[in-house]
Amino acid sequence: MQTIEQYRIFEVVLEGTDKGNPYRDVELSARFTSERGADSVVVQGFYRGDGRYGIRFMPTLEGSWSFETTSSDALLDGARGELFVEPAQASNHGRVLRSKDVMHTSALFDSSLDFTFSFEDGTRFLPFGTTCYAWINQPAAVQEQTLRTLAHAPFNKLRMCIFPKFYDYNHEDPELFPFPGDPTDGFDRARFNEPFWENLDRRLSQLDEMGIQADIILLHPYDKPEWGFSSMSTEEDIFYLSYVARRYAAFKNIWWSLANEFDLMPHKTVEDWDRYARVIMANDPWGHLRSIHNCRTVFDHTHPWITHVSWQRIDVRRTAECVSELRRAYGKPVVVDECAYEGNISWGWGNISGEEMVRRFWEGVLRGGYLTHGETFVDRGPQIWWAHGGRLHGESPARIAFCREFMESLPQDMDHVAGEVFTLAGTFTWDVTCMADKQGSGTDCILIYFGLSRPAYRDFVLPEGSRYAIDVIDTWNMTVERAHEDMSGAFRLELPSRPYMLVRMQARGENAL
Amino acid sequence: MQTIEQYRIFEVVLEGTDKGNPYRDVELSARFTSERGADSVVVQGFYRGDGRYGIRFMPTLEGSWSFETTSSDALLDGARGELFVEPAQASNHGRVLRSKDVMHTSALFDSSLDFTFSFEDGTRFLPFGTTCYAWINQPAAVQEQTLRTLAHAPFNKLRMCIFPKFYDYNHEDPELFPFPGDPTDGFDRARFNEPFWENLDRRLSQLDEMGIQADIILLHPYDKPEWGFSSMSTEEDIFYLSYVARRYAAFKNIWWSLANEFDLMPHKTVEDWDRYARVIMANDPWGHLRSIHNCRTVFDHTHPWITHVSWQRIDVRRTAECVSELRRAYGKPVVVDECAYEGNISWGWGNISGEEMVRRFWEGVLRGGYLTHGETFVDRGPQIWWAHGGRLHGESPARIAFCREFMESLPQDMDHVAGEVFTLAGTFTWDVTCMADKQGSGTDCILIYFGLSRPAYRDFVLPEGSRYAIDVIDTWNMTVERAHEDMSGAFRLELPSRPYMLVRMQARGENAL
Repeated sequence: MQTIEQYRIFEVVLEGTDKGNPYRDVELSARFTSERGADSVVVQGFYRGDGRYGIRFMPTLEGSWSFETTSSDALLDGARGELFVEPAQASNHGRVLRSKDVMHTSALFDSSLDFTFSFEDGTRFLPFGTTCYAWINQPAAVQEQTLRTLAHAPFNKLRMCIFPKFYDYNHEDPELFPFPGDPTDGFDRARFNEPFWENLDRRLSQLDEMGIQADIILLHPYDKPEWGFSSMSTEEDIFYLSYVARRYAAFKNIWWSLANEFDLMPHKTVEDWDRYARVIMANDPWGHLRSIHNCRTVFDHTHPWITHVSWQRIDVRRTAECVSELRRAYGKPVVVDECAYEGNISWGWGNISGEEMVRRFWEGVLRGGYLTHGETFVDRGPQIWWAHGGRLHGESPARIAFCREFMESLPQDMDHVAGEVFTLAGTFTWDVTCMADKQGSGTDCILIYFGLSRPAYRDFVLPEGSRYAIDVIDTWNMTVERAHEDMSGAFRLELPSRPYMLVRMQARGENAL
Repeated sequence: MQTIEQYRIFEVVLEGTDKGNPYRDVELSARFTSERGADSVVVQGFYRGDGRYGIRFMPTLEGSWSFETTSSDALLDGARGELFVEPAQASNHGRVLRSKDVMHTSALFDSSLDFTFSFEDGTRFLPFGTTCYAWINQPAAVQEQTLRTLAHAPFNKLRMCIFPKFYDYNHEDPELFPFPGDPTDGFDRARFNEPFWENLDRRLSQLDEMGIQADIILLHPYDKPEWGFSSMSTEEDIFYLSYVARRYAAFKNIWWSLANEFDLMPHKTVEDWDRYARVIMANDPWGHLRSIHNCRTVFDHTHPWITHVSWQRIDVRRTAECVSELRRAYGKPVVVDECAYEGNISWGWGNISGEEMVRRFWEGVLRGGYLTHGETFVDRGPQIWWAHGGRLHGESPARIAFCREFMESLPQDMDHVAGEVFTLAGTFTWDVTCMADKQGSGTDCILIYFGLSRPAYRDFVLPEGSRYAIDVIDTWNMTVERAHEDMSGAFRLELPSRPYMLVRMQARGENAL
């Protein structure tokens, strides 16, 4: 009996017919049943060419499992097997899902669970994403470089496309296409090009080994007429989406993004997107996270198949500030998947400073949202990170690492203090962005972020009956200075007249964290 | 016969009764009639104490005028006189009014006239304001220092209160109060304290000599209980407002601001403000500009008495960007009278950087609005400019001078190119703020501002048939560099990957300005 770690991929490889078009014609699935209970999962198989078929299964329960296949091809039908699932290792937490779908709700945690993510074992997951849209469509050496860069970067989510990208700074044909064929003679969209997908298999596994969620963008508008991947028929889209879901749903580290900038694909209707989401769901027994990303028009994220908001800023100036209104509007976790990129390309979405990128991160995370980084320097080498991957050059990644480490050090029940709250710790909140613990007193841990404001001081009045340790944190210079060890009542906190300062107030003693 | 320059103040001083309360009881006016035509102006007089009465007249026409008084006091009734009005000197352009109320409209200029100001002789006036709320309530030496500072500053409009200010950093009683009395024993709001008003007379004249418009804030909420000037009865308010209008309407350099942050005076209703505006108008035969300023709730600027929008930013991040929507909403000139202040005080409205202040200026003026500066450093001496006047310490005034000089050098028909215009000079406009000439081709002079964006280049396609001189302007470092002397068609403009850059494209030859 084969042994596999919980949440890892158990792959069944079968030999069957290679006649006709097995991608289209052969039906194959397997039912996996756990000895421990009623848990039973039906998994769709997929064709790999040369008469080879795959079925990928991710066990969510430990112990013995058995499976049996069903197929329209007699060679594939009725195959049986067993596997033994060992407990997950310490670094393996399974899928990322919405907290409310993972945790036992309690009154105390209630509202926060609507807006946060957790691994399925209950471990907190705070997405700190980045963007390499077309990294798997670059030469192998660049792909390897991207992985080396990611290994030392602070990012735990990667926005990436399947189809290649044709757009500014992206005009090369990739070496491998998802379909057989070429741009000159056209593509056979009823079949798949196995080497392309084997490369994607490997890349997704490598990301998983690094603890990086692959936010897979299934469709996007940046297309070349000779490719035509953005203008396939509905039937072709569904054929492709089914294949992707069957092949990759067993990867614990994948998220589904139906589209990048869906509104730049006006030939696809809202009903199409709803239908495509149902196709993904029908072929993904693990219910991975699903969303859809906008350019100028936000998709209505109340649609029930959408698990979280994947948002691009619309206004040039108000970006991460919108997390608050998006949370209110949709009641789901909010990921600002495009807040503009650090760099100096021609367009405004790709030429903000490191300071502004980092400011948007803090502004968003303290509002209880999540941000995605990207980098677009036109003059720092042959690759541009946002599309090709390669190397990072900007000033923001180190500060995003600091931000991630800080946020992960906080109590789990921290949440944004809404703008409607008039004062916190005795100071006005209209000009600052605040977080506080929600499970305790609401004042055991208080964060106050000043952003572009650069006061020389701020007056506070601490809640009666508590004593506090006060830290002044420079989010740009990445320093934490203990200003007061044991403070109570009214006091004036000296600040350095610099932007990007964060104040942390932690209750001591009985109120301590 | 006395001689007076056009638009200057001709002051009639009369002796009358000092019995009872002449401020309240004596009616006095004078009709001024021009020999040149039907022009006839009735001007209300005002009491100055000690039996002295004043009538101030500003002639708008040259030539001979005569006047005759009417009064409830026989000593003041029937006084007659003549004056001869000489042409205005080159630096004297009269009042500032809305362009549409000054200029003969033409189809070409039409829409711009709705949103711009002109002196009454037709000279363009671009407000570049600053703020010294309580400067006339400071010791005389500070007032003198303020004037010396203003003499070398770029500002041509000053927001200033009449009543003293009681607020953070402002807790001193002034030397002079507008009413007789003192904070201990109370004030007689049925009389006025002449030394206070004589000082204001002198200060307004001094501002006028420097070409500075006094944007007089008539009421404001920053009051001390012992003063009570923000909570006078409606009758007391009207008595006060009538007096101010009668005493100052003949100053060519005054604007009326009904209130600062009117919404922080909730005991006064919208109907009160409308009524107060009518009181001002009834006592101001010269129809000076009128507006009212908000804190969190914008006054409905469609009210017909409001000549222009006097707006404070509401959102922390979107400030001068709102000029476009305010123009659309109200169809009147838009002055962002509070976009926050350069400095480092505790509150977010008073601790932005010089860079951000200057960015807001450019963002607003290129949208066809006007900005007002203020400065709030808590650690640069005993005065804070925003309230006390004194000295300026910030980095923005020099850049605002550069901005003003640049904007005044432009053709008069420049106006904002609305965000709905998709491209200009062959480039997208969504991420830049643009202006162009409206009278000519619309492409004879083009301005493109990049704000926080810091591209390494931008591609343009110039309109066919024209050749252009291209300047790259660093609005922070105040440099203008000629990038191309004679450019046409498609080209790539190199830019320095720094923020705050402005590009100017001027058509040459027959299309030249």
